Amino acid sequence: MNKVNISEKLTLFHDHWHPRIVGELNGQHVKLAKLKGEFVWHKHDVEDELFLVIAGTLTMQFRDRNIELNEGEFLIVPHGVEHRPVAPQEVSILLFEPGTTLNTGDADSALTRKDLERL
Amino acid sequence: MNKVNISEKLTLFHDHWHPRIVGELNGQHVKLAKLKGEFVWHKHDVEDELFLVIAGTLTMQFRDRNIELNEGEFLIVPHGVEHRPVAPQEVSILLFEPGTTLNTGDADSALTRKDLERL
Repeated sequence: MNKVNISEKLTLFHDHWHPRIVGELNGQHVKLAKLKGEFVWHKHDVEDELFLVIAGTLTMQFRDRNIELNEGEFLIVPHGVEHRPVAPQEVSILLFEPGTTLNTGDADSALTRKDLERL
Repeated sequence: MNKVNISEKLTLFHDHWHPRIVGELNGQHVKLAKLKGEFVWHKHDVEDELFLVIAGTLTMQFRDRNIELNEGEFLIVPHGVEHRPVAPQEVSILLFEPGTTLNTGDADSALTRKDLERL
């Protein structure tokens, strides 16, 4: 049982759209990721997903509106809801979601990341 | 679907050891709480519990050691592990844990809080 310092973990990687696992509890994963640019439209058929902004600004696009998240703000995207994360500048985020969650959901893509590393 | 600003939510209550629910996903709750002083020793027979410090310093006591958590640090306490949060000065935390989690776990106490408010 060790504590996790979020800022320290964020210094350990620099690539975008490639989440790392930094905690596990109750079948859920805590992940960190750096995002920059536009992701793919996707949804998760089963998993709800929490996005918490650690640094920067994240725009979450939905089919009918956008929601802008700044540092210290989080958003829960329910399963089944199409969304697309967009970050004109780099943003660092923390994710809470079931261990089964695939980053691109139902949209298989060159951005799909499996077998995530644990930091 | 609305974003949650953690700092704004923390302005809405001032009492200690009384978590509020600020998000729900996958059967898990996201809670905010302000702590000051010494809690009761307890464990959760089923639920793992994540403590993320938003502001201040939290000491998590275990039977064999203490772990000090500062802003931006989190700790996952596995189910079955006795622990006691202690905060000499007020600390604001975010909790991530199953919706079934009772704050005092197996230790029924005057500090036990049921039917938590949603902010």
